Amino acid sequence: MSNILAELSQILAERKSSANADTSYVAQLHAKGLNKILEKVGEEATETIIAAKNVESGANKSELVGETADLWFHSMVMLSHLDLDAQDVLDELGRRFGLSGIDEKASRGK
Amino acid sequence: MSNILAELSQILAERKSSANADTSYVAQLHAKGLNKILEKVGEEATETIIAAKNVESGANKSELVGETADLWFHSMVMLSHLDLDAQDVLDELGRRFGLSGIDEKASRGK
Amino acid sequence: MSNILAELSQILAERKSSANADTSYVAQLHAKGLNKILEKVGEEATETIIAAKNVESGANKSELVGETADLWFHSMVMLSHLDLDAQDVLDELGRRFGLSGIDEKASRGK
Amino acid sequence: MSNILAELSQILAERKSSANADTSYVAQLHAKGLNKILEKVGEEATETIIAAKNVESGANKSELVGETADLWFHSMVMLSHLDLDAQDVLDELGRRFGLSGIDEKASRGK
Repeated sequence: MSNILAELSQILAERKSSANADTSYVAQLHAKGLNKILEKVGEEATETIIAAKNVESGANKSELVGETADLWFHSMVMLSHLDLDAQDVLDELGRRFGLSGIDEKASRGK
Repeated sequence: MSNILAELSQILAERKSSANADTSYVAQLHAKGLNKILEKVGEEATETIIAAKNVESGANKSELVGETADLWFHSMVMLSHLDLDAQDVLDELGRRFGLSGIDEKASRGK
Repeated sequence: MSNILAELSQILAERKSSANADTSYVAQLHAKGLNKILEKVGEEATETIIAAKNVESGANKSELVGETADLWFHSMVMLSHLDLDAQDVLDELGRRFGLSGIDEKASRGK
Repeated sequence: MSNILAELSQILAERKSSANADTSYVAQLHAKGLNKILEKVGEEATETIIAAKNVESGANKSELVGETADLWFHSMVMLSHLDLDAQDVLDELGRRFGLSGIDEKASRGK
């Protein structure tokens, strides 16, 4: 898995079980429950679509990158909430496209 | 970047410029334009949300993994259409969470 | 209720219970179930958002009117599927905004 | 048009041009612009979908009615922002379904 995605998945797993729900945005989302997490996924998908239309109209691309990061991040919180993680999604993408990900597996084996 | 995501980004870049639009789903999406690609992003976000609610009600998790893969895949097509790619999003996530991604950069440097 | 919305609600109620599911789009949606109906609600919301951004960029407004009609129509099918209808939503809007709807109630009383 | 929708459309038109943007939620939405209004449309569509899934799982229907009211309300703000209103959408629905809306037109003619 991406080192970024792998590190982020680990952070998300730690914050899910964190006792101090009041100090972590992620722990707060888990405490509020799946509906709240899914509302965020829908909200960020909408903001991504609007940002992409704005790029088409000449806006800077940084907002679109930020909204897409929000979308992927909240979908990772959703996966974490349901005891899944980004690797499950990457494995599925790899299967569909016949991707080896071989160096990745080698490096994970280290 | 994830080897899976890196390989997939490369495939998406190749298919974007492919001459045979009639044989590739990705090339067809690019030919139809940004609106069609964004409709797919919205559609897959909705299907992800529904699949997550189904998991909450006892459904198998494989459908949710598949829908999230569809969501990430179509958001990567959107990035590609606007001359961005998954690395831009991973860099943004890394910045926000103070992730080094250091092994990753080392392995990319090979 | 709007005569248009009242007539449409009645059509939707009739088509829900229609025996010939193969000839009616609405009956087919009910047969496919709530998930399919909700996918359509999400899809039409996305298309409405895209159409509104296109109007902002100079496109004709007729597409936006059509997509909003699709959104309202599919949300009415959703209400019908769960034994609700447009009047429930209009009553709620009336309550929130302190609207009398008095002529309407009078005309329904005829 | 529905008396409720007609009265609400008029309220929305008045609040759009209201000078005291700081006292009206609707005037604030218009001041923030189309992107913010469309974010609300997408957000309420997501919340409607989640509420419908909750009804399927046994939840009370009042939340779904409330979320659908939010969705229709914010799509009416969107129409107002782009100099359209609910009647345009009702006319389109009437055309598609061959609905006369004849009593309605008669009563509007009074």
